[in-house]
Amino acid sequence: MLTTYQISQLLDGELLGNPEIVISGPSKIEEGSEGTITFLANPKYESLIYETKASAVLVNRDFTPESELKVTLIKVDDVYGSLGKLLEISANLHVQAKGISPQSYVSDKAILGNDISISHFTAVEDGASIGDHSVLHANVFIGKNVTIGKNCILFSGVKIYHGCKIGDNCIIHANAVVGSDGFGFSHDKIKGYTKIPQIGNVIVEDDVEIGSNTVIDRASMGSTILRKGVKLDNLIQIAHNVVIGENTAIAAQAGIAGSTKVGKNCVIGGQVGLAGHISIADGTMIQAKSGISANITEPNSKLYGYPALEYNQYLKSYVYFKKLPELAEKIRLLEQEIQKLKNQ
Amino acid sequence: MLTTYQISQLLDGELLGNPEIVISGPSKIEEGSEGTITFLANPKYESLIYETKASAVLVNRDFTPESELKVTLIKVDDVYGSLGKLLEISANLHVQAKGISPQSYVSDKAILGNDISISHFTAVEDGASIGDHSVLHANVFIGKNVTIGKNCILFSGVKIYHGCKIGDNCIIHANAVVGSDGFGFSHDKIKGYTKIPQIGNVIVEDDVEIGSNTVIDRASMGSTILRKGVKLDNLIQIAHNVVIGENTAIAAQAGIAGSTKVGKNCVIGGQVGLAGHISIADGTMIQAKSGISANITEPNSKLYGYPALEYNQYLKSYVYFKKLPELAEKIRLLEQEIQKLKNQ
Amino acid sequence: MLTTYQISQLLDGELLGNPEIVISGPSKIEEGSEGTITFLANPKYESLIYETKASAVLVNRDFTPESELKVTLIKVDDVYGSLGKLLEISANLHVQAKGISPQSYVSDKAILGNDISISHFTAVEDGASIGDHSVLHANVFIGKNVTIGKNCILFSGVKIYHGCKIGDNCIIHANAVVGSDGFGFSHDKIKGYTKIPQIGNVIVEDDVEIGSNTVIDRASMGSTILRKGVKLDNLIQIAHNVVIGENTAIAAQAGIAGSTKVGKNCVIGGQVGLAGHISIADGTMIQAKSGISANITEPNSKLYGYPALEYNQYLKSYVYFKKLPELAEKIRLLEQEIQKLKNQ
Repeated sequence: MLTTYQISQLLDGELLGNPEIVISGPSKIEEGSEGTITFLANPKYESLIYETKASAVLVNRDFTPESELKVTLIKVDDVYGSLGKLLEISANLHVQAKGISPQSYVSDKAILGNDISISHFTAVEDGASIGDHSVLHANVFIGKNVTIGKNCILFSGVKIYHGCKIGDNCIIHANAVVGSDGFGFSHDKIKGYTKIPQIGNVIVEDDVEIGSNTVIDRASMGSTILRKGVKLDNLIQIAHNVVIGENTAIAAQAGIAGSTKVGKNCVIGGQVGLAGHISIADGTMIQAKSGISANITEPNSKLYGYPALEYNQYLKSYVYFKKLPELAEKIRLLEQEIQKLKNQ
Repeated sequence: MLTTYQISQLLDGELLGNPEIVISGPSKIEEGSEGTITFLANPKYESLIYETKASAVLVNRDFTPESELKVTLIKVDDVYGSLGKLLEISANLHVQAKGISPQSYVSDKAILGNDISISHFTAVEDGASIGDHSVLHANVFIGKNVTIGKNCILFSGVKIYHGCKIGDNCIIHANAVVGSDGFGFSHDKIKGYTKIPQIGNVIVEDDVEIGSNTVIDRASMGSTILRKGVKLDNLIQIAHNVVIGENTAIAAQAGIAGSTKVGKNCVIGGQVGLAGHISIADGTMIQAKSGISANITEPNSKLYGYPALEYNQYLKSYVYFKKLPELAEKIRLLEQEIQKLKNQ
Repeated sequence: MLTTYQISQLLDGELLGNPEIVISGPSKIEEGSEGTITFLANPKYESLIYETKASAVLVNRDFTPESELKVTLIKVDDVYGSLGKLLEISANLHVQAKGISPQSYVSDKAILGNDISISHFTAVEDGASIGDHSVLHANVFIGKNVTIGKNCILFSGVKIYHGCKIGDNCIIHANAVVGSDGFGFSHDKIKGYTKIPQIGNVIVEDDVEIGSNTVIDRASMGSTILRKGVKLDNLIQIAHNVVIGENTAIAAQAGIAGSTKVGKNCVIGGQVGLAGHISIADGTMIQAKSGISANITEPNSKLYGYPALEYNQYLKSYVYFKKLPELAEKIRLLEQEIQKLKNQ
């Protein structure tokens, strides 16, 4: 936590008010509370600065209050830029490297970069390597021969199975699992299911973020791949041998079945399901909860429904779905009318 | 585990039979097995007591067997009340405070209440505080400046990120995550996604229960809030800045997108999805698997479908959905009839 | 990791080429990369062996190359059999017992079999028993009086609550939870929800596999049961008192509500939801994302939709759902025609 004085120094700002307020975090101007800092960028909202309960406000250099102010002001050149800088500093305070906990386990056959942090009860197995400036929070598991790139943050409880590779600048949230066995069995009417060994791995390229409790299965052979810049929300299922293209974003609880290939720059809504062994073209947008069971070959398609149709087609059909009792009644009346006409 | 004698003492009961049976747990009378205790409250089911394989039975004081009994009886004033008391004792046996494991990590800047338990491989970071009588099972992570209230139970593997606040009497099940980053990015066609720092927190009020592997994301700014008495099942997604009203219950695998406000006393079925930035009125009931994409303003609405309609409207439309091939055939026949009539 | 020489020895093969290549894993012949081993079983694909980038290839004894080869060959009697053997060896390398980590916690009231492995930061509580040859990876929690059978593998972060029983040859993937409380509350308009103690357990029979982050709740009373040979994918919800029959396979993110009984040899797709208190006949197949709200009494039924219909019936109705705007237009035209005829 920082004081108003420290913040003004960090932002090259000018302090007007109390330099000793300990700031616990930021707030919106209309929801501010004691000990928080907020901001006023757009003069349109100036009236709010006279009412805010925040303790400090970032304002532009040229801001001159029209009436008396209770809050401490920090005047800066660029309110949004300064806010971003402050947020970044604030976020980093929680993830700064603190070295290797004596209560961790690090194999002497692991390779550690510079300036890394390995927290309590985290295990790093034989042959694993951790890149410079990466941070492993508590209770993380790094399996044999895993590679973690530079500047990664793995939050508490993340589990990376043997042989998987994580690129640079990746963030993986709590209790996510990377590299568990794909769901692969051979079936026999008498013996039931026999496990097919899953001996591939998972490759996560640079700049990927993976949400809490999301699972990415290893390939049966070869690799399950998340390309550069992929963003996955929480509780997502990525099955074996899936490949997800660059800068595709997927919302929570979506699931992608085995061997499906998703293009670049797709946006996939929450709770969407993609069947296995299909291809999704670049730039495809899929409405939340939709189910896709066939290839999408046209780039930038918009899809909706279960099974999914073209977005507007689904909406149009659904308009008439709502009116089905009415349509059925109309048909009944038409049948009556026809009967009458025939009897004439 | 308790003996039949100990149980009779705890319940002020009268023991008829073997005082030395070690009771491993309760059972239903028709499914009883050796070493379990069951109960007979309703005389209608008396015949079952002569056949049960349980080792002991709670019965009312005035119970007199009509024929010979093999089981040990414990006679009590109120069978249901005694059963409840027994179950509570039994549940507490598994969560009683046992002090602080030497194999845990507790920062010397953390504040610990009285009579708390911190189990093996659990980490409590700087500035965190744990209320009286709270129990942290193994492999739990309590981030910086987290507050845990009194009488809480956090099961194994729970992860609470920095700055989150948990009220009194809360139960959080294994591997649930509270306070991971919201899924927030700014998008640029050239650079792809840039992370928006998520600098709010999560506030969980008193008497809340959170299921296993459920995830509650921190607010981008401000707080994601679960009000008093909220009950969440397993594998639920609660996105950033969501607020859930008092005594609302949500079944497993439901997901609520960012900034949505859910009222009090709502009942939300399993696998339901709520879109972001909408409001759900108090007392709303949502059928499992439904998708809600717009505000629900009428309290106590019942909803069903994808996208959801009023409950009965969906059912009625679905009746005709099933008959669609038949309706289409009727239309075809009508067209023929009309043609015939026109040709006359 | 093994060298090409070691592999040839393990498979009783004949080595032609470099005996000192360190093999990191297997690959498909068309996707091979340096340091991997691949295979050629079907002569039809022989051309690929001249182009593969793999470092070694398993071939049949009688294989004679038609032109010059860069790769190292290992000639074996049965390519598929040898591959299977190699994969099994490779998989076992990652899970071999290594004894009990000094950084684990094992109660002196726990019972340990022969040749077991308990990794770092894993806790085994009072009265728990672990069968011969079972492997507990890092950060696993084994509650009081839990029984784990022989030859089980529990991956990192698995949590088993008190009193649950796991059979022989079970595999449980990372961060799965077995035995958390069922979602059971009594409701009162004034007091809100009161927790019903969940005092049953979970019984997992032999040869069961459970995916990452899947949750299986304990019974309120009695047992939640997974019968022999059940296979569960990732992120599945199994509620209290559910029973799943032998050799039933369930894909990721499916959910089964309380007290539902699923038959043997069923195949349940991803994201399917089953309502509570229903029965599903043996051999039922349910299409991904379907919702089942009533008993399925006919064995080997195929179901699809929300709520689910017979598979082909849903598809047929959906064909007309797509055509609803067109059908509605036909009805409008028919009404016009009738009006014209009536006016004649």
